Amino acid sequence: MSLLIIGSIALDTVQNRFGKVKDALGGSAVYASLAASYFCKNVSIVGVVGTDFPKENINLLKNKGIDTNGLEIADGKTFRWEGKYENLNEAITLKTSLNVFANFSPKIPDNCSSCEYLFLGNIDPELQISVLSQMKRPKIIAADTMNFWIEGKNKSLKKLLKMIDILFINEEEIRMLTGESYIFDAAEKVLQMGLKLIIIKQGEYGSIAIAKNNLFFAPIFPVQKVIDPTGAGDCFAGGFMGYIASQNNINYETLKRATIYGTITSSFNIEGFSVEIIKNINRIQIDNRYNNLKKYTQFS
Amino acid sequence: MSLLIIGSIALDTVQNRFGKVKDALGGSAVYASLAASYFCKNVSIVGVVGTDFPKENINLLKNKGIDTNGLEIADGKTFRWEGKYENLNEAITLKTSLNVFANFSPKIPDNCSSCEYLFLGNIDPELQISVLSQMKRPKIIAADTMNFWIEGKNKSLKKLLKMIDILFINEEEIRMLTGESYIFDAAEKVLQMGLKLIIIKQGEYGSIAIAKNNLFFAPIFPVQKVIDPTGAGDCFAGGFMGYIASQNNINYETLKRATIYGTITSSFNIEGFSVEIIKNINRIQIDNRYNNLKKYTQFS
Repeated sequence: MSLLIIGSIALDTVQNRFGKVKDALGGSAVYASLAASYFCKNVSIVGVVGTDFPKENINLLKNKGIDTNGLEIADGKTFRWEGKYENLNEAITLKTSLNVFANFSPKIPDNCSSCEYLFLGNIDPELQISVLSQMKRPKIIAADTMNFWIEGKNKSLKKLLKMIDILFINEEEIRMLTGESYIFDAAEKVLQMGLKLIIIKQGEYGSIAIAKNNLFFAPIFPVQKVIDPTGAGDCFAGGFMGYIASQNNINYETLKRATIYGTITSSFNIEGFSVEIIKNINRIQIDNRYNNLKKYTQFS
Repeated sequence: MSLLIIGSIALDTVQNRFGKVKDALGGSAVYASLAASYFCKNVSIVGVVGTDFPKENINLLKNKGIDTNGLEIADGKTFRWEGKYENLNEAITLKTSLNVFANFSPKIPDNCSSCEYLFLGNIDPELQISVLSQMKRPKIIAADTMNFWIEGKNKSLKKLLKMIDILFINEEEIRMLTGESYIFDAAEKVLQMGLKLIIIKQGEYGSIAIAKNNLFFAPIFPVQKVIDPTGAGDCFAGGFMGYIASQNNINYETLKRATIYGTITSSFNIEGFSVEIIKNINRIQIDNRYNNLKKYTQFS
């Protein structure tokens, strides 16, 4: 099965009490595709970079088996984000330079338009919709979004929500989207828009996967030390989507396991800056954590 | 097996957006003993009330099979707490009238000094220690505490921690107690003080039970509507302790189940003001929620 991932590709400058990286590889599509690559052998990425984007970053993706056919190199500079963390739960944006990302108009290569699984990373919902118009009907469509679009592109976002199956969203965002403070009420409202599954991301508290008649609580995986949470949500979505793209039968059990796999890929990523950990793990390490998390949650 | 519960007995005035109750039954020992009564047939309560304490409150405890032999009626008024909630995660204290509780000196009745299980509700750690000195060595001793004692009676609290097996504490409190911001590091430090198990309460996110080589994540139980969180932590501790007091063998599996039973009794309590729900449930309802929570957390 094949998985297409659309989103940002960035050079991030991040600092917190553990250190600093400058122009390090980042962006939602990068984190998600790296995480997905440990489960699904046919991951394609669509995004845009500038002419300054280091070749080794593209090689890294290729070496992970990720198809970069849809990675557009445009005249200009790569999207840059600069942020800091005072505590590790909240990123403070210092500077955003959209650069070539300002005019990003995703073009889906022919070989990707029939992908069965699609993850629309956190970009303008109008662009997310434009991606859908270029696809033959995928089996599962998932999307991420953020407060910026909930406020600024509410109408487009609500249109998008009618077209997708799975939404990744954090607590603050789902409250903003629905006007409901109790997240179970908020999830109910979003499900009524036609979605099949909502994954509410709760940061250091884990996540909740909510479907019409199903509910699943996933904790975090407890790591020794959290170094940098940048990309955690994208690695979660990437691990989740990569796992379901590797399965033939999608039922609620599959979705539970996907939620745990997302939790695990995310847990590796936060143990280092940029992609330094997520680029270098293997399936055995992932499955070890998966089995440990089972012990940490199962009771008789 | 018998369980002794020591703590406050209060008349609470609470208001939030769902309503208001005045001089309603509350206090850590009340909530905990009601929750425990659904598991353990030999629960005794030790605390103090004033001469104004309504007889029907004592009858309620008695009707639940709770031994009130250690419930002291002192000259004066019952302890009163007045609070409000603007959001349901944080109680704002409007007024505290200690009244007879100001001179509370727990006296353990003879029939209680050999109880096998002991829960020291959130009172001055010096009083918690004085209770211990009146007991033959119980099998399991658990205690709750709060920021007020961590700051004001730090030395006594640390002395107490060396004498007990299980600590119930919330995230903010364990960070304050240890100076560690990452809760797993904080728990590690507290375990080094000699405790066997630490239950970190995370409010709307559930709880984590941490032992030396064991870890267990419990989510919340998702209720239809949270009406009043007052007493949630006490009902958690009461359900937890009541369950283990009903078991012959205490191993980590028992402690996991106790954590879930604590979660469940707490989930009922927050569905109403004061004790209106927790006084009126039954074991079948509890076990239904227990089994549902299993479905919400188990994966293959």
